[in-house]
Amino acid sequence: MAGKNQPTKVAILGASGYTAAELARILLRHPGAKIVAATSRQDESPRFSQLHPRFSGQLDLPCIPFDPLVIRSLGVEVAFGCLPHGASQGAVASLLQEGIRVIDLSADFRLRTPEYHRKWYKEEHHYPDLLSEAVYGLPELYRDKIQTARLVANPGCYPQTVQLGLLPLIQRGWIDPVNIIADAKSGVSGAGRTPKLGTHYPECNENLSAYQTGIHRHTPEMEQVLTQVGGTLVQVFFSPHLVPMDRGIFSTIYAHPLKKGLTTAMLFEAFREHYSGNPFVRIVEHLPATKFTAHTNFVDIHPMAVKDRIVVLATIDNLIRGASGVAVQNFNLMTGQDESLGLLP
Amino acid sequence: MAGKNQPTKVAILGASGYTAAELARILLRHPGAKIVAATSRQDESPRFSQLHPRFSGQLDLPCIPFDPLVIRSLGVEVAFGCLPHGASQGAVASLLQEGIRVIDLSADFRLRTPEYHRKWYKEEHHYPDLLSEAVYGLPELYRDKIQTARLVANPGCYPQTVQLGLLPLIQRGWIDPVNIIADAKSGVSGAGRTPKLGTHYPECNENLSAYQTGIHRHTPEMEQVLTQVGGTLVQVFFSPHLVPMDRGIFSTIYAHPLKKGLTTAMLFEAFREHYSGNPFVRIVEHLPATKFTAHTNFVDIHPMAVKDRIVVLATIDNLIRGASGVAVQNFNLMTGQDESLGLLP
Amino acid sequence: MAGKNQPTKVAILGASGYTAAELARILLRHPGAKIVAATSRQDESPRFSQLHPRFSGQLDLPCIPFDPLVIRSLGVEVAFGCLPHGASQGAVASLLQEGIRVIDLSADFRLRTPEYHRKWYKEEHHYPDLLSEAVYGLPELYRDKIQTARLVANPGCYPQTVQLGLLPLIQRGWIDPVNIIADAKSGVSGAGRTPKLGTHYPECNENLSAYQTGIHRHTPEMEQVLTQVGGTLVQVFFSPHLVPMDRGIFSTIYAHPLKKGLTTAMLFEAFREHYSGNPFVRIVEHLPATKFTAHTNFVDIHPMAVKDRIVVLATIDNLIRGASGVAVQNFNLMTGQDESLGLLP
Amino acid sequence: MAGKNQPTKVAILGASGYTAAELARILLRHPGAKIVAATSRQDESPRFSQLHPRFSGQLDLPCIPFDPLVIRSLGVEVAFGCLPHGASQGAVASLLQEGIRVIDLSADFRLRTPEYHRKWYKEEHHYPDLLSEAVYGLPELYRDKIQTARLVANPGCYPQTVQLGLLPLIQRGWIDPVNIIADAKSGVSGAGRTPKLGTHYPECNENLSAYQTGIHRHTPEMEQVLTQVGGTLVQVFFSPHLVPMDRGIFSTIYAHPLKKGLTTAMLFEAFREHYSGNPFVRIVEHLPATKFTAHTNFVDIHPMAVKDRIVVLATIDNLIRGASGVAVQNFNLMTGQDESLGLLP
Repeated sequence: MAGKNQPTKVAILGASGYTAAELARILLRHPGAKIVAATSRQDESPRFSQLHPRFSGQLDLPCIPFDPLVIRSLGVEVAFGCLPHGASQGAVASLLQEGIRVIDLSADFRLRTPEYHRKWYKEEHHYPDLLSEAVYGLPELYRDKIQTARLVANPGCYPQTVQLGLLPLIQRGWIDPVNIIADAKSGVSGAGRTPKLGTHYPECNENLSAYQTGIHRHTPEMEQVLTQVGGTLVQVFFSPHLVPMDRGIFSTIYAHPLKKGLTTAMLFEAFREHYSGNPFVRIVEHLPATKFTAHTNFVDIHPMAVKDRIVVLATIDNLIRGASGVAVQNFNLMTGQDESLGLLP
Repeated sequence: MAGKNQPTKVAILGASGYTAAELARILLRHPGAKIVAATSRQDESPRFSQLHPRFSGQLDLPCIPFDPLVIRSLGVEVAFGCLPHGASQGAVASLLQEGIRVIDLSADFRLRTPEYHRKWYKEEHHYPDLLSEAVYGLPELYRDKIQTARLVANPGCYPQTVQLGLLPLIQRGWIDPVNIIADAKSGVSGAGRTPKLGTHYPECNENLSAYQTGIHRHTPEMEQVLTQVGGTLVQVFFSPHLVPMDRGIFSTIYAHPLKKGLTTAMLFEAFREHYSGNPFVRIVEHLPATKFTAHTNFVDIHPMAVKDRIVVLATIDNLIRGASGVAVQNFNLMTGQDESLGLLP
Repeated sequence: MAGKNQPTKVAILGASGYTAAELARILLRHPGAKIVAATSRQDESPRFSQLHPRFSGQLDLPCIPFDPLVIRSLGVEVAFGCLPHGASQGAVASLLQEGIRVIDLSADFRLRTPEYHRKWYKEEHHYPDLLSEAVYGLPELYRDKIQTARLVANPGCYPQTVQLGLLPLIQRGWIDPVNIIADAKSGVSGAGRTPKLGTHYPECNENLSAYQTGIHRHTPEMEQVLTQVGGTLVQVFFSPHLVPMDRGIFSTIYAHPLKKGLTTAMLFEAFREHYSGNPFVRIVEHLPATKFTAHTNFVDIHPMAVKDRIVVLATIDNLIRGASGVAVQNFNLMTGQDESLGLLP
Repeated sequence: MAGKNQPTKVAILGASGYTAAELARILLRHPGAKIVAATSRQDESPRFSQLHPRFSGQLDLPCIPFDPLVIRSLGVEVAFGCLPHGASQGAVASLLQEGIRVIDLSADFRLRTPEYHRKWYKEEHHYPDLLSEAVYGLPELYRDKIQTARLVANPGCYPQTVQLGLLPLIQRGWIDPVNIIADAKSGVSGAGRTPKLGTHYPECNENLSAYQTGIHRHTPEMEQVLTQVGGTLVQVFFSPHLVPMDRGIFSTIYAHPLKKGLTTAMLFEAFREHYSGNPFVRIVEHLPATKFTAHTNFVDIHPMAVKDRIVVLATIDNLIRGASGVAVQNFNLMTGQDESLGLLP
């Protein structure tokens, strides 16, 4: 889309949060992208580096109010949406109308039908057509569609660990698809940057807690993708926990084998084959730890056959692979660049 | 055993670790106990407050080498064993021979048979008779036996959360006893005080990892108790994780209901009834968090019926309820004092 | 004041914060106090244990709106004020009018003159008479006055470390009184329980920052006490920092000796003599660390003569010795009980 | 030195520590460097990614025993020494003999004279000639000499914050050179990767402590550079503290102005002018925080005139700007590349 060697002009919508900051960090070093606009709902048009002081002298761009015409006039070809769920829909629609492609990091376009969306997000979806047009941004599964998409629904952080951790097993029919538990643990940045009591330092430091056990909104996102891949109903009991650390998600996934005689070695072989050629999925022999993927776009996966169960351990950095890193991965695909540009090494 | 209003003289064996320090903290304020001896394998007979500087001016007792005769000569009636697994056996046996009752915080006397012990701890047990004599120190289950025991095998930290979280369900036959998963998360003090790479600050800070998935030695301890209570084989798939915090264990326990129509309300009623009269088990309506039990001897339990599963959330302070607090609870029972003396409020 | 063996009835004003919770923890175990009232500005009269779930089953008292008549009618003799600065004044005055003695944990009555208060708190003081009546609640210095005080201005957390760290030196005239630097480091609970961006977990975790360098409001509180003791103007350059931990204050105090030939040994002797008989001041030989005083009412002090300077290291638990613990120490003095009751061991 | 567009071949000596890992992270993405060797004293020649699992699939190079001939035979032109103090000297000398330039991250070549080295490191220096040849690797001060150096003594983490924070003031003669205090706070990775009790997670988590107050070995390194620049004796009272976080150093530097009427605005002007053209020194208007420089090569400096003092706040990432980042900055200078290559943005 951009001329030869000309970086693609991009905008970041909703500059004040953590995913915007991580996007900026990645894009500043990306040879194929140039940040020409950032938007913020704050009145005083703060510089990006005022919102995030670590960018002092690096990204001092003033953050403007959201206006699709202004964004188009700046030559933006791709916009990254870091707006809150619900608030994102309208902005995305108006940008598409201006011919700007969008990678939406909110949950607004992740579920496939308005009914499903209403059920889990307790409100009507205002752009059902876009909902069906949107491509779910999991590169390992939908690489081709992403390349030509106008609208990519960037995947959720928790869901990716569960989807990628189960895809090889579901596709092969090796596990019972309706008897799966995903016990997940997340760092606090996953809760966003708006101060609340639950994320106040002395409340969540030195503390581990469960929340939304079995009823979290990331559940349908996992099930929808796995059901499509498996060709049969997949149900995941998803149980998230809050962990006193900045970043990282660790999912411990429990399943029952349908295929007899599965060994850990067979699992490794299947996983390695399945993810061959995918630069960001690592099938690792050591037990994963969030720190081994922190500040990277990798997904580390370790499958095991233990006793009569299949256990898959999967870990990512929730801000990078779970949000801004996979968004850039999708951006690379959409703009015909190398999938790992700006993300590796 | 002690005269009226005379505190019982006690010893702490193995003074250098975290459980010894927590014991000291509790016992110093306990009106019915007096620490008259502490032992350490270190040559220079350090003061207790040199090993643990927070006790400066509070417990400056020199730590002596272990010698059962010396300990008896000091009038010790009850000894708390904080020695490492394996090293504890012999010390316990020699103290019993001197007529000193022992609460052993190691795992040496927890499994009921030498065979079982050998299978999980990969070595012979040298005191099979004591193994069968030892009373498993879970007061909520074995209160009567503990009162008259010479030797109490103080229960493990993880096992207590799983045992107490499942007892009402197993006893009532409400869940499938062989399809249980306990996904547990522990603070780092659970790994002891000996420096290792895995517990070096920059390694485990900002990190969450799994270890010994499905093969941890606390598994048989859980299963043994629950099997006995249930009168049928109980199997737990136990999966521990290391969390960047000092203290606290959070167990998320997943089970399948056998009884139809179980609701969360029914579970609460059953749990409340089951633990009525037990001062340290709280059936809480809020979702538990480790911080709500930190520095206390409480076990907070929250049972749920969600979708087609039973989930029990249970949390403790691993150093107190998981070790030194329950040890004092056992001490109170053994010495005919109020079970919660020194531990409440 | 209470009859023999009858605990004194107390109230906690402003139940939702951390100092209220720490007060509750201490008072619940205190044989000479009984919490009969807690107030909260929240409409729905939450139970104390709803505000602080760790007190489930321990302190389920409903928190009532503040009303001095109601508080008197409940028989309250002493009230602990945990209200915010500014909001505390009026409540304190109305309680005194009802004959209820008050220990005010806010800063409202700490500075000795309305002018001084106005200068640092940027607003008029509405009760100048009470300001001059209030006794500054530093037991090591004003023990006698505290015993008979109607109103105790409980001292600030930072100031105590600096005051106690310098008192022996100032009183002896051993250091230059106008060339003192106090570089202090505090855990995040010192910032209160109201969520703000600066205390949002992912902002202050893994972070150390300075704030209000040289202009913090605790400066006059330090200087006022030290000036009074020294009989000469004392000036402290106070420089606080925020540290990623729950609790603890560590003050590194730098001074220039006026007396020649001062050695560390001489300092230890002077400090030990000075604080002899004070149960909560420990002159420690090891380098202090916040963890050695965490969850205690101790002040650990380590003086040094190094090169041509005097350095004093002082550490406390900001919530206990820095607020609720010293408040109970003051309560003990006011009610004629042992100074360390409920606080030691 | 390398042919056009050919990356320079480099070696990392001492692969197991944190600085080696950070070097690898930076160099893997550096277009002008290629890691062809890594050494380790461990017998079994572990892969780099076994020592540091986050490099799985990224740097699977086996770590060989140190041998200067083998290193030369691999075509190494520049070696990064990450060996412990003391052990580094000999290795450095033998590499230089093979014609390999060395950037030594140890302290072995930082002090200018053997006498000075002996005084602070309590042992003889075995290569006094190299000591006088070595160029101190502070690019902002010795850029020209570094370009042609055979041996660069990479500067210490603490010293850089103090040197860079004081250089403009010392050079201008604006402060009293012998009345300076540097109160510094460091994350735990600064203590290295070898497990010890003091860096065991439950010991230093939730803890802040002082160590080596006034006697730390980084003192002479600071004083030597500042004395040279100032042309007069500069003395720094250096007082480090350990902070519960992975990385980051924050130095609060207190000085007395010699020049009258200094304002914060004048300081900002002087600092900005002084560091103009230095890509990694940021004179920031906000109060610095370690998190704003974490994972970057920036030094953030904020000078202030407050009351009658000059205060300079300076912060870096101790592993990057404090060690591996500045090493690459030196590497860039030595190899004629852009100073910020691989480090910015």
